Amino acid sequence: MRAIVFDGDLRYSADYPEPTRPPGEALIRPRLVGICNTDLEITRGYMNFRGVLGHEFVGTVVAADNPAWLGKRVVGEINAACRRCPTCLRGNESHCPYRTTLGIDRRDGAMADLFTLPETCLHEVPESVSDEAAVFTEPLAAALEIVEQSHIRPTERVAVVGDGKLGAMIVQVLRLTGCDLTLIGRHPERWELYRRQGTTCVPSTDVPPHPFDVVIDCTGNPAGLAIARQLVRPRGRLVLKSTFAAETHLNLSMLVVDEVQLIGSRCGPFAPALRLLERGLIETQPLISARYPLSAGLEAFAAAPGQLKVLLSV
Amino acid sequence: MRAIVFDGDLRYSADYPEPTRPPGEALIRPRLVGICNTDLEITRGYMNFRGVLGHEFVGTVVAADNPAWLGKRVVGEINAACRRCPTCLRGNESHCPYRTTLGIDRRDGAMADLFTLPETCLHEVPESVSDEAAVFTEPLAAALEIVEQSHIRPTERVAVVGDGKLGAMIVQVLRLTGCDLTLIGRHPERWELYRRQGTTCVPSTDVPPHPFDVVIDCTGNPAGLAIARQLVRPRGRLVLKSTFAAETHLNLSMLVVDEVQLIGSRCGPFAPALRLLERGLIETQPLISARYPLSAGLEAFAAAPGQLKVLLSV
Repeated sequence: MRAIVFDGDLRYSADYPEPTRPPGEALIRPRLVGICNTDLEITRGYMNFRGVLGHEFVGTVVAADNPAWLGKRVVGEINAACRRCPTCLRGNESHCPYRTTLGIDRRDGAMADLFTLPETCLHEVPESVSDEAAVFTEPLAAALEIVEQSHIRPTERVAVVGDGKLGAMIVQVLRLTGCDLTLIGRHPERWELYRRQGTTCVPSTDVPPHPFDVVIDCTGNPAGLAIARQLVRPRGRLVLKSTFAAETHLNLSMLVVDEVQLIGSRCGPFAPALRLLERGLIETQPLISARYPLSAGLEAFAAAPGQLKVLLSV
Repeated sequence: MRAIVFDGDLRYSADYPEPTRPPGEALIRPRLVGICNTDLEITRGYMNFRGVLGHEFVGTVVAADNPAWLGKRVVGEINAACRRCPTCLRGNESHCPYRTTLGIDRRDGAMADLFTLPETCLHEVPESVSDEAAVFTEPLAAALEIVEQSHIRPTERVAVVGDGKLGAMIVQVLRLTGCDLTLIGRHPERWELYRRQGTTCVPSTDVPPHPFDVVIDCTGNPAGLAIARQLVRPRGRLVLKSTFAAETHLNLSMLVVDEVQLIGSRCGPFAPALRLLERGLIETQPLISARYPLSAGLEAFAAAPGQLKVLLSV
């Protein structure tokens, strides 16, 4: 089958072996797969991953233990947990120490004609949600993890630092809280959507002097984290959404002096992400920069840096 | 001037004395005033209020100490606090023991040609927000008080009991959290809007068997509170939004056994309410049942029970 594979180099394979479906897993034919910054970081060495890339997908189930899944249009949580260890039994499956992660850690991803994922990871896509919207479920869930972890009050001043792909989801989730929201970024050409939605947008070279109650870093780079840190008020919260290969430094004793709360935030809940898409509260169409067939996957990866969402059609 | 007055009976007066503007207060000519359930409760004896009714308004400033307010279209917080007592100095002005409350407690309200309110209570209405939307700012702020007080997670199951005027604001705020939301009410003819917005609606005679993480009572009556109580899971939260003249009873020892958290919730923040209206996230037009001139205020009050929002044009 066709696949986009990383084995130290990024390659397109026309004859990658088809996956064998393990018990409890569904065999899925992807419809659309998104390229995420994490995919780009993997090609720079993040997670030392080897295999098929791709974890943002919408697809169709072609085989499964439970026949109710057959033919269903699905999205899927990317962490395949053991569901038996103490971490899983406490309900923290996305932190299972034995987990594999779709296209990120010891599990072939969705940029292929076929892939497998545990049936327990699947969520059926409501009919009214298009493929082009559903493919954003995973990053939207990651944005929702912020409001799952932390109480963002309607009266708080919140800054999102980073106007990339994940930032686009985060600002759209946070505006719904009613909070006083500022997006700080380096791509003014992307701000029309956010401004129309009532979010203040300012360039990272012109950061507001007033500190914020909550600051989200989703820049994906150390310089962005430094900007985010400097915007948090004493006793405020700094939410870290970036994962990147480079090491970063924070002055921890200043965090203590300022009593700043640091909140690491990763994968989030899929069901509410699908509810927000179904309720029409998240715009995804303006975020799609380009669309390539799977066989042109290498071109898609070459074009992706500096773009918003690049999609692969399978 | 014209005014709708409650002095034990509800009366229309054509020659009520014009207010004298105290220092620090603005003189306001209302444009639209909403009739709230609290107004109806006042006519049944709630708060022992005597004077001009009306606390949900949008109006124009005609006199003020600060000339920047002159001619501005405004809405206003209804609690006029002393701003000097320990409660105020701790930032809890809406709980000031010396406060008066517009049209509710020792302060003439907005159902008149003119009224006064401290300039510190005023919020300018953004140009893009119509009068018909702005007049909902006060109840929308009351709905936002729920998410200001309590962390409603996107993954939680939430029930709103009561499909009246305040319920209409609360379901529209809570759907924005992404939570799994059910409205329980007695007026199926009002549910088209909520269903279109992705909220499950069920009749109060057919209450779901599964308990909810969070239940909001905004029925305004003891029977509704009893339904709400029975829907909360152990360790869940029961938010009380109803204020009514009748006494109510809850089995407090069962609250202890179930470790249910009871949260009284009243007035809320205006700035995020205006932000949600400006962002187009709250529908108000379908909630307007009727509109009367101020001089037909008694007819409006007679028509209001059982209706959604009845507005008075001044």
